[in-house]
Amino acid sequence: MADYREMWENLNMDLEKHDVLCEALPEMFGETFLNQENRPDGMNYFNYVTAEIHGARIMELEKHRKEGGKVVGAFCVFVPDEIILAADAISVGLCSGSQFWIEDGEKVLPRNLCPLIKALTGAKVSSTCPYFQSCDILVGETTCDGKKKVWEILNEYTPVHVMELPQMKREENYEMWMNEIKLFMDKIEELTGNKITVEKLKEAIELNNEKRRALKRLYDLRKNKPSPISGLDSLLISQIAFSDEPRRFTEKVNELCDELEEKVKTNTSTNKKRIMVTGTPMALPNWKLHSIVEELNAEIVVEETCTGTRYFENEVSTNGDTMEELIKNMADRYLDINCACFTPNKGRVEDILRYAEEYDVDGVIYYNLSFCHTYAVEYNNVEKSLRDNNIPVLMIETDYSEEDSGQIKTRVEAFLEMI
Amino acid sequence: MADYREMWENLNMDLEKHDVLCEALPEMFGETFLNQENRPDGMNYFNYVTAEIHGARIMELEKHRKEGGKVVGAFCVFVPDEIILAADAISVGLCSGSQFWIEDGEKVLPRNLCPLIKALTGAKVSSTCPYFQSCDILVGETTCDGKKKVWEILNEYTPVHVMELPQMKREENYEMWMNEIKLFMDKIEELTGNKITVEKLKEAIELNNEKRRALKRLYDLRKNKPSPISGLDSLLISQIAFSDEPRRFTEKVNELCDELEEKVKTNTSTNKKRIMVTGTPMALPNWKLHSIVEELNAEIVVEETCTGTRYFENEVSTNGDTMEELIKNMADRYLDINCACFTPNKGRVEDILRYAEEYDVDGVIYYNLSFCHTYAVEYNNVEKSLRDNNIPVLMIETDYSEEDSGQIKTRVEAFLEMI
Ligand code: SF4
Ligand code: SF4
Repeated sequence: MADYREMWENLNMDLEKHDVLCEALPEMFGETFLNQENRPDGMNYFNYVTAEIHGARIMELEKHRKEGGKVVGAFCVFVPDEIILAADAISVGLCSGSQFWIEDGEKVLPRNLCPLIKALTGAKVSSTCPYFQSCDILVGETTCDGKKKVWEILNEYTPVHVMELPQMKREENYEMWMNEIKLFMDKIEELTGNKITVEKLKEAIELNNEKRRALKRLYDLRKNKPSPISGLDSLLISQIAFSDEPRRFTEKVNELCDELEEKVKTNTSTNKKRIMVTGTPMALPNWKLHSIVEELNAEIVVEETCTGTRYFENEVSTNGDTMEELIKNMADRYLDINCACFTPNKGRVEDILRYAEEYDVDGVIYYNLSFCHTYAVEYNNVEKSLRDNNIPVLMIETDYSEEDSGQIKTRVEAFLEMI
Repeated sequence: MADYREMWENLNMDLEKHDVLCEALPEMFGETFLNQENRPDGMNYFNYVTAEIHGARIMELEKHRKEGGKVVGAFCVFVPDEIILAADAISVGLCSGSQFWIEDGEKVLPRNLCPLIKALTGAKVSSTCPYFQSCDILVGETTCDGKKKVWEILNEYTPVHVMELPQMKREENYEMWMNEIKLFMDKIEELTGNKITVEKLKEAIELNNEKRRALKRLYDLRKNKPSPISGLDSLLISQIAFSDEPRRFTEKVNELCDELEEKVKTNTSTNKKRIMVTGTPMALPNWKLHSIVEELNAEIVVEETCTGTRYFENEVSTNGDTMEELIKNMADRYLDINCACFTPNKGRVEDILRYAEEYDVDGVIYYNLSFCHTYAVEYNNVEKSLRDNNIPVLMIETDYSEEDSGQIKTRVEAFLEMI
């Protein structure tokens, strides 16, 4: 691996602390991923990206910035990437899935908060994440109480633009959201100095749609019995989607899918239980639940999460020749995401029931990051609907620490035996 | 006390369970309130209201409903009471401060949730709160994640109208909020069958402003050294404000203030520490923190909470002769409340610093109901500003149980010695 110390130093990183992080990751990755049997060759690219996660991609961001380009950090599937791309900026996802950052996050945040929020805050506060350090602006949103309030703290370290996400899905909310998209567009034009034209925006929409189609193709392949790819590997791909160069990423996912299409032809059936995971996002490198489940006699075949179907389902229409129309198309696609932050959120239950059928799952694991209120309260409704449809469900509420791994394993084991 | 069993039965209450609640309250009230020395006579009315909390006031609601009137339940200082009053309906506050309801709330909600939300849910689910049972409709809002999602559950038991509260305070948010007020108005007109006219609305605004002025007068009296009324008694009055008949309530508060004005003339100074409480609301009968603090050598002289200044500060202007103008006046007054649910929320820090000076406090207790994310995250900012101004602050995060009372007492004691 190249020596990136100078680059990290230029990014004002805390090198000593960062070394600790860099030492832990390869071993964790090796143990979790490289021991899997019968892995597709197409995963090599994603292995490489992970190994180079603080290196090669950061160099690309660095190069882009030296040439006058901007880097925009976001935390949520509601931020319309297309606008960033259309202004020739690079968009990177900054949600954080590592226990490493919790301690620093807790220095400025209450302990009783979702680990994702504590980790992303810790990453910035401790200057140990090269993505954060490469961002010219962060884009926050008002999806949940914790995130909504954390922007005020991050704003003391770096510029933050906050998008107000509506909390309902009435007609007026679509209008509100269109307005927020316009404000965001103004901000990005101002930041980059680049005008977003109808042509540029259409191109960006098409680029993102291709990425969505590639991920959809991957997920469709998981509908095979058995799935030609593990849940762990699919999760890793979804996680990488948030920060990788989109053209290359799409190409690599499609190459992998070509291989998987061949693979399913010769696949022999297993007796593994097919599991859907639904709930809160799993940001890189949060592989905790997947690795526990797939060490047992089970495969995760679909994730109804922000690092799963919510990221790629539904495309943005390119119909229309005016900015207004394209903005409306984006508003429609993004506001139709069925996140628990909306009230009511009946669409999510419908999605879950549809996926249960399409992916032919034996059971559902409801994954809740500790202290995430919206998903935790919504469990009541989801559980009821699943029960009405005779689909077994297990609720796992957890954070990033390894303390409860043994207990989770025992509960998942019992669940797998029961279903 | 009259026998209200028939009335409660007609309200479909769980009488057996309700008996348990009714047995516990008088003793708790007696111990907390009636042992205070040198209490003003004007508190007798509020003692009576508390003793009759499930009786006399419920009878009034009952009478009103028999005559065709409607009762509207709300949970938040953002719901514009004026509209309810202008349609000749009665508004009652339903936030719940009793541990009694937690268990039933936890049957449908996660444990890791603010006790206020669990209690209000438990009160409805268990059919043991006569206020809930008397409501023709509940009005929810999207102030926080927990409340936002709990309406979906309550909606299975009773009709709920949800108002979308903006999450920011930009110009467009005031417009959004005006629109929500209009939708609310339509709903209340539909429910009551009464048209809300400009005259009726102006009258209701004036009625509410008088109530706000009476509470402001009470709070101003607390600026005296020593305060002529305990924090406990003031808190009780604020709590009763949410459900009592507004004309009578205002009159009784003003009578009490007349008495207190005399009292301050002969007051002799004490060495009690003057404390401000800031943070989350204390719903009836949550007297936990106040009773701990005032058993020590301290008096609480101001609450920057929803059961304190946020409830009565700033009046709704009656300027204007059109509905549009009055709606704008309401939007302005209500959206200017500095709740932690907004981002940013700089106004709250300014309020706290101003009150610290006006009420000449020796220290601040930041009161946070467990798992309330917005107030917990905002603590970081508030603490910093208080520290910059050399005002000592103590953070107390707690729920409704008595388990941690000893520990809180020890911490408050240490704090009082330090300041
Ligand atoms: S998991 Fe829940 S609490 Fe955490 S960031 Fe997402 S919505 Fe917010
Ligand atoms: S105290 Fe906090 S969590 Fe509880 S209802 Fe109020 S804003 Fe919501």
